[in-house]
Amino acid sequence: MKANILFENDLHKVISFTDLVTGEGIQSNQMVIVQEGHSAIFDPGGDLTYMPLSMAITKHVKVKDIDYVIASHQDPDIVSSLDKWLMYSDAKIVVSKLWERFVPHLVPGYMKEKAQGRMMPIPDQGMDIPLGHSVIKAIPAHFLHSVGNFHFYDPISKILFSGDMGASLVDDNPERPVRDFDRHVKKMLGFHQRYMVSNKVCRLWANMIRGMDVEMIVPQHGRPFEGKEMIGRLLDWVETLECGIDRVTQQHYTVP
Amino acid sequence: MKANILFENDLHKVISFTDLVTGEGIQSNQMVIVQEGHSAIFDPGGDLTYMPLSMAITKHVKVKDIDYVIASHQDPDIVSSLDKWLMYSDAKIVVSKLWERFVPHLVPGYMKEKAQGRMMPIPDQGMDIPLGHSVIKAIPAHFLHSVGNFHFYDPISKILFSGDMGASLVDDNPERPVRDFDRHVKKMLGFHQRYMVSNKVCRLWANMIRGMDVEMIVPQHGRPFEGKEMIGRLLDWVETLECGIDRVTQQHYTVP
Repeated sequence: MKANILFENDLHKVISFTDLVTGEGIQSNQMVIVQEGHSAIFDPGGDLTYMPLSMAITKHVKVKDIDYVIASHQDPDIVSSLDKWLMYSDAKIVVSKLWERFVPHLVPGYMKEKAQGRMMPIPDQGMDIPLGHSVIKAIPAHFLHSVGNFHFYDPISKILFSGDMGASLVDDNPERPVRDFDRHVKKMLGFHQRYMVSNKVCRLWANMIRGMDVEMIVPQHGRPFEGKEMIGRLLDWVETLECGIDRVTQQHYTVP
Repeated sequence: MKANILFENDLHKVISFTDLVTGEGIQSNQMVIVQEGHSAIFDPGGDLTYMPLSMAITKHVKVKDIDYVIASHQDPDIVSSLDKWLMYSDAKIVVSKLWERFVPHLVPGYMKEKAQGRMMPIPDQGMDIPLGHSVIKAIPAHFLHSVGNFHFYDPISKILFSGDMGASLVDDNPERPVRDFDRHVKKMLGFHQRYMVSNKVCRLWANMIRGMDVEMIVPQHGRPFEGKEMIGRLLDWVETLECGIDRVTQQHYTVP
């Protein structure tokens, strides 16, 4: 289990984990931010990752001290370990308000009391989540791919955790930043064409991100994008992507 | 726990359950089809419903004898009880191929062996799932709302299990069919406007369903639609619905 330190100063640390999923589940990255003793964990995953992740983070933060478990959306690889985090921490669960009444389906009846009052829903326009002397910014990313979807921006490290946007399926070393964008495209294309909903929302998203000061984009699967130039290449590509409903016709909606 | 018998003859039975979710989770309907000793369960739900549902069905089928656990998509209220069904039955898990590598995140490591070879992915164009001397037809419903989404049609009872399409949030008696469509619209509108992806896919879907012989539409939340006339009203409404990305502008993609 390798912890990748993405940013570190005296008061603030950003760590990613890239090798916790083994077997049939898709490779996934988890991210942790520690800020003056406060901490947030992003897209912690499912039953497959709870044990290795809770062990991997202990060097940096104790599970029981985590302030937030933050989910970009509602998928099984994102947040289905929720019952465990609720059980072993006092963390608030931060997720789109669209999933506020769906996510409790992950929690068995006997944990109802322990779960009470711990949902912190994000409104559609996003919000600032206070963390120590800073914030985590929840940025709208709806329909990319989930209908209620957020990315998370850390203004200290200038890292954007971009969920499925920019995700890639790579064979090895998912912690290594993309170096050759043109070659990397084929590791992203099929996934984005099918899972991202439409060019319209890709354009709105890319345009918003251009206005931000982002130094690194860390997707939930595969390699990160480092530096303004590489991030610019990603945004140019996203902006022109035809995907999702752009590519369907009546032929795709036919009784088999 | 009330079992609603939606269809019954000597060889074939369709049952729905509407009151198994209590507390903070959203009201959900589960459906079971029993055909000459074979059976399939649809969108069984999460940890919240596993226990009551497994008890509720025993009168009709034993958990260990279930042939299929069928999921319209990957949401927590749909299939996050997967580990339990894998554990206590030998059922195949039927879900869009888009979620084939995501759904294993629901399964803890120690169950890897028990889960092996039990995923039955549905290709994007849908497929026939053999059940006894009949089939269940998996019908494409992508982007309504999930990017990889299916509805399920039983050609014997002519019931379509429509997942989130036609879903409503009602205060009482979710098992009672819709009688006054115009009044019912306000129980569906907000949800469909925000969760359904676009009018384009609504139209493609409605057009496909018009070509089918459907006697009842049972959504995963709220009331069913019974008879050609009421189903026609629903399809007319879906066809003209502006929703999802149709309704977003740059204002919705702005840093908070």
